[in-house]
Amino acid sequence: MLPFARISVIGLGLIGSSILRAVRESMPTVALTGHDADPAVRARVVTLGLADDVADSAGAAVIDADLVILCVPPGAIGAVGRAIAEDVPADCVVSDVGSAKAGVLAELVAALPGRAVVPAHPVAGTEHSGPDAGFASLFRGRWCIVTPPAGADEAAVARVCAFWERLGSQVERMDAAHHDRVLAVTSHLPHLIAYTIVGTASDLEEVTASEVIKYSAGGFRDFTRIASSDPTMWRDVFLANRDAVLEMLQRFTEDLTMLQRAIRWGEGDTLFDLFSRTRAVRRSIVEQGQDDPAPDFGRRH
Amino acid sequence: MLPFARISVIGLGLIGSSILRAVRESMPTVALTGHDADPAVRARVVTLGLADDVADSAGAAVIDADLVILCVPPGAIGAVGRAIAEDVPADCVVSDVGSAKAGVLAELVAALPGRAVVPAHPVAGTEHSGPDAGFASLFRGRWCIVTPPAGADEAAVARVCAFWERLGSQVERMDAAHHDRVLAVTSHLPHLIAYTIVGTASDLEEVTASEVIKYSAGGFRDFTRIASSDPTMWRDVFLANRDAVLEMLQRFTEDLTMLQRAIRWGEGDTLFDLFSRTRAVRRSIVEQGQDDPAPDFGRRH
Repeated sequence: MLPFARISVIGLGLIGSSILRAVRESMPTVALTGHDADPAVRARVVTLGLADDVADSAGAAVIDADLVILCVPPGAIGAVGRAIAEDVPADCVVSDVGSAKAGVLAELVAALPGRAVVPAHPVAGTEHSGPDAGFASLFRGRWCIVTPPAGADEAAVARVCAFWERLGSQVERMDAAHHDRVLAVTSHLPHLIAYTIVGTASDLEEVTASEVIKYSAGGFRDFTRIASSDPTMWRDVFLANRDAVLEMLQRFTEDLTMLQRAIRWGEGDTLFDLFSRTRAVRRSIVEQGQDDPAPDFGRRH
Repeated sequence: MLPFARISVIGLGLIGSSILRAVRESMPTVALTGHDADPAVRARVVTLGLADDVADSAGAAVIDADLVILCVPPGAIGAVGRAIAEDVPADCVVSDVGSAKAGVLAELVAALPGRAVVPAHPVAGTEHSGPDAGFASLFRGRWCIVTPPAGADEAAVARVCAFWERLGSQVERMDAAHHDRVLAVTSHLPHLIAYTIVGTASDLEEVTASEVIKYSAGGFRDFTRIASSDPTMWRDVFLANRDAVLEMLQRFTEDLTMLQRAIRWGEGDTLFDLFSRTRAVRRSIVEQGQDDPAPDFGRRH
């Protein structure tokens, strides 16, 4: 049995459009409605034929849905929740896909009193944005973390879990606050660092921009991929998960300061010990199928 | 005409063994000799059939060479230079492949008086180590930076440049000190940051190691690839290029502190401006063929 029959996706970028494609492929009888605040994106989704109907307002898009998934940046979640509140059917489940959960959960619960709110976070994506960047297999083999509030409707939670499993994901349930701390270290801090280092490299006077680009294969280019992710979404993620990000950043800075001191004083053993330890983490990630074991991400040589 | 006829490679790991393979493929008539300090590595190279002769000592490996390439960690360069000094033929060119050049150049010039020393740095590699990790096409389409000392024998410099072009590289000549500043930002700082963040993530108490690994697709896994590079080599690189690394690290820390403050005070515009700027750098790297344009490094989904 299908967990939902009439799904509405609000926000039709990389994630939203990938959900439309994945539902079409794995649950072809589901009725799909979509809306995006940008008329150009709406027109593109019509052209691509990703939904049965693309509505001109969020409210019109959700009016007949049994699942609404908000795929907008975290900073827009509250406003969109309030905008659809009148039109969301009473028995409809409302979810999202954002990378910061505790604040978003509180905003959605406040905006949609009496509705089943079951936030979710598919840990999947690429550095590209927009409806053309999406693809049906994006969530396959990836984790999706579901963070229902205390006292959630368990039937609604089970249906959201079943939905993500149908898209090929492995589902894990987690407290929203704990999710935000885990993602602060596995995703938000890496993005902040990558954005910073790409900025630092661009600002050097005596090393030219063309040199930075030419010799980027030594490590820098990997950071530029991460640092080309959607700016609006990432701004909102850092603001929405401020406390956990600042705490992880503080730990990172302490560790970096220790290495800085080791380099300054020529303490090779301190460096060697850390550099040996980090190899084991990589091995586990590859063993657990969370990354490609091909050298250099399988880049062509 | 071949730039060299009898090439000796000292250090037979990822880079050294890739040079042997690449020479075999592109210049099959060249006589290849090799040596590695580790007997197991020597035996493996014999089994793989990568050289005409694998010598038991560095001196014996270079005795008949017209090009010697030292592919050992920067910290071992001086000792290896002194070890082969007696046996390097008078007209032989000595080069290396290290990622830090000014200190290495001074050590080699001191160890090998009267010989033509022409250091080089192929900006290529993977996170894997050892003779089995090498492959012939590693240097193809990548940059190789040649950093001869002031007053170098120009004929020797031209031959080293021609050698790397035969392996498929694009060659650029640079002052050793400038090279070290460029690589500090495009390679050394990214590696230091990656090692740090992987260490920070491993040390958290309330987020388990299994959670870090499970949800690593959100960005963290890319850092683990870089942080699984050879620990000995990277320890030596940081110690050998201390001043430039510390300076770049200082700039990075300043920039990170500014972002930290922006997150703390909710200054979204500061974040958005940087995040938009860094996208352009990525675009240039892809346009100039220095990285794979496929989303997510072309990882399978």
